[in-house]
Amino acid sequence: MKIPEILLVETDHRPGSLVAVLTIVADANIVIEGLACIRRTEEKSTWELTVDITEEEAVSLPKKINTLPNATILGTSDRVFKRHRGGKISVVSQSKLENLEQLRDLYTPGVARVCLAIRDDPSLVNTLTNLPNTVAIVTNGTAILGLGDIGPVAGLPVMEGKAALFNELAGISGVPILINSHDPREIIDAIVTIAPSFGAIQLEDIAAPECFEIEEALVNQLPIPVMHDDQHGTAVVVLASLLSATRGVGVSLQESIVGQIGLGAAGLGIARLLMAYGIKQVLGTDLNQEPIARLESMGGQRCDLEELMARADVVVATTGVQGLVKAEWVRPGQVILALTNPEPEIEPELALSKGAVYAADGKSVNNVLAFPGVFRGALDASATKITKEMLIAAALCLHTRAPKDELVPDPLERSVHVAVADAVARASSQT
Amino acid sequence: MKIPEILLVETDHRPGSLVAVLTIVADANIVIEGLACIRRTEEKSTWELTVDITEEEAVSLPKKINTLPNATILGTSDRVFKRHRGGKISVVSQSKLENLEQLRDLYTPGVARVCLAIRDDPSLVNTLTNLPNTVAIVTNGTAILGLGDIGPVAGLPVMEGKAALFNELAGISGVPILINSHDPREIIDAIVTIAPSFGAIQLEDIAAPECFEIEEALVNQLPIPVMHDDQHGTAVVVLASLLSATRGVGVSLQESIVGQIGLGAAGLGIARLLMAYGIKQVLGTDLNQEPIARLESMGGQRCDLEELMARADVVVATTGVQGLVKAEWVRPGQVILALTNPEPEIEPELALSKGAVYAADGKSVNNVLAFPGVFRGALDASATKITKEMLIAAALCLHTRAPKDELVPDPLERSVHVAVADAVARASSQT
Repeated sequence: MKIPEILLVETDHRPGSLVAVLTIVADANIVIEGLACIRRTEEKSTWELTVDITEEEAVSLPKKINTLPNATILGTSDRVFKRHRGGKISVVSQSKLENLEQLRDLYTPGVARVCLAIRDDPSLVNTLTNLPNTVAIVTNGTAILGLGDIGPVAGLPVMEGKAALFNELAGISGVPILINSHDPREIIDAIVTIAPSFGAIQLEDIAAPECFEIEEALVNQLPIPVMHDDQHGTAVVVLASLLSATRGVGVSLQESIVGQIGLGAAGLGIARLLMAYGIKQVLGTDLNQEPIARLESMGGQRCDLEELMARADVVVATTGVQGLVKAEWVRPGQVILALTNPEPEIEPELALSKGAVYAADGKSVNNVLAFPGVFRGALDASATKITKEMLIAAALCLHTRAPKDELVPDPLERSVHVAVADAVARASSQT
Repeated sequence: MKIPEILLVETDHRPGSLVAVLTIVADANIVIEGLACIRRTEEKSTWELTVDITEEEAVSLPKKINTLPNATILGTSDRVFKRHRGGKISVVSQSKLENLEQLRDLYTPGVARVCLAIRDDPSLVNTLTNLPNTVAIVTNGTAILGLGDIGPVAGLPVMEGKAALFNELAGISGVPILINSHDPREIIDAIVTIAPSFGAIQLEDIAAPECFEIEEALVNQLPIPVMHDDQHGTAVVVLASLLSATRGVGVSLQESIVGQIGLGAAGLGIARLLMAYGIKQVLGTDLNQEPIARLESMGGQRCDLEELMARADVVVATTGVQGLVKAEWVRPGQVILALTNPEPEIEPELALSKGAVYAADGKSVNNVLAFPGVFRGALDASATKITKEMLIAAALCLHTRAPKDELVPDPLERSVHVAVADAVARASSQT
């Protein structure tokens, strides 16, 4: 698998020295993800060159660049590590503690009166504490990004990242909860036992099929919103993307046959939301029988890979397998989203050259577009569940706010998350 | 029981109008805890008058004040509630999210490299995440302040208060965890299951005797510091206070017979620490047999109340019962700490009048002096347990920093917590 590497490249100040470096990268069939000059002396410049590469390429590429007369690899940048150092979040007091009156009001003895007020009217917890603004981000580390079961502690940087995004994009307090268990029953029990601590629960990077059992049990047992982001957050962004992809090319999404290649947590979450949106025919294929049976129980149809490619008007691939979809399978007029990152099941250019009417990869289909606004809206509406209607409202909102020729809006645009939250809260109060 | 009330009193601008109000308070045998002018017009002033009163007094006192010609009760202030509105803590991102490069470094795809680094070297979690700075504040709500079993949600304002103090006084991220259970086994299991989320665990306001079983199991099972603050945090401040109380009056604490009246979580925690400090004779009494047996198993002696008062050189009362200690029981030369708040087992003036060489109540024995520095020190030293040596070091530090004629230092003095943390970290590395 490919993961990002930031090479530090020093070039002489001679015309063409940087181009020579970038040509080597291009010839190795590697896309440049980022380039920035971080130091410039009289004779040389140092560049941070970001590329998504395999472990083998991380060895071979620097060697090739070092053969150039006017460029030298200085090493790799620790910019990413620097940004994680000390952690990405902290819990802070909302007010400064400056005098004894504050201490006595905020802690003992004053806090006793606030506790008694909540005891007598439990709904006051929503105005007198941060509870309705607090979302647990729960993982057992079994499916961290595309890295597999690396354990909850190695997954903590992802959970802290989500908490940082919750704060920055939606003003939510996200609390990473790392679960030391692979047993769904044990995980469910632990979360139920600590659930009063939170206004909502986001499940994250928990492997299928355990993730389905865990989510279903928690949704049924708890009076607060529970959502497995890998399923439903991803589904929201994919539905928005499909609405945008089919918009300009004369394909009606609801009337289409959708073919899903790969039925992991994301694939099945997408299938569920597409059907809820009104798509009647969803075909699916997977290496395992269990997820196919799950798709059938939801109303989808089992279909082998080549037949799926032949029948589907819209193809959504979430397999994790680079290059799985052969060019000759592409049917003229098809819409294809090949979402595996960083290397898709089929390159969009290749699919288009074979007659696809629209093709894209997963680079822009980032679930950061969905979860902050979805949870903000659910909390604002005091929703007890996150319903299909709320997810569809989020997807429609993202779709309508996508710039022309883009699948989805810019995730750093704060107003997008406000709009998603509003749409979700409205959909919640209507159901 | 008495809890704080803030009365809003309007007085005319006539000489003696405020004095008349305060005289009524004094005649009702109530101490004024706070007084501030919050509004002043040409003819009248409005005062926030803070008093610790019972529910009956909350009715009778305003009536009496309203009989005055130049004063009127406007109602009660919501200053305390205002300070709690919206909660007292929030989880924030440590950096602003301003561009795509930051998003890609802090979240996917960059975070993958950080996760893999921790997978390959788990100790990196201490530098690349906020984990070693995060303390769970765990309660099941069974012994919130002196309010009893009001449930974990009504106790949340206390947990948020501790989290705010952790942040303000020690730079620690405190995470309230509310446990929906009365069953020690269930509580232990839930905490063990989520323990990888935290660098340390503070147990808080969990009723005895369950608190002992829960703490012991967690200390044994988890590789991180676990401390029940009501036992050990309180004990640190009491040991510091006793060292200060005996300092100037010619009593050697280690050679004294200490008598403890009340053997709840705080009482037994104090007994344990006093014995660890080297006090050989600790007598104890309680209404229940179970805690007395527990004291005996620790090396203390059962003793009835009157005999204890006759034998003890130093008396520590933590019963929750106002006026329990009769004046005639006081032995000349005794040191007496009557710690029940807000009304002690015996008023210090009364005890002194009967020949006590030193007497104080619990007003200044605030556990906020101990827990921030104790946890900061334990985390800084990467301690796996909080040992008796670390607690004694904290107590000695507080004692040596107490101003002349004070039992303990000012809890708002930031340098005190730094000094406690240093002392605790040093004691940790020596054991």
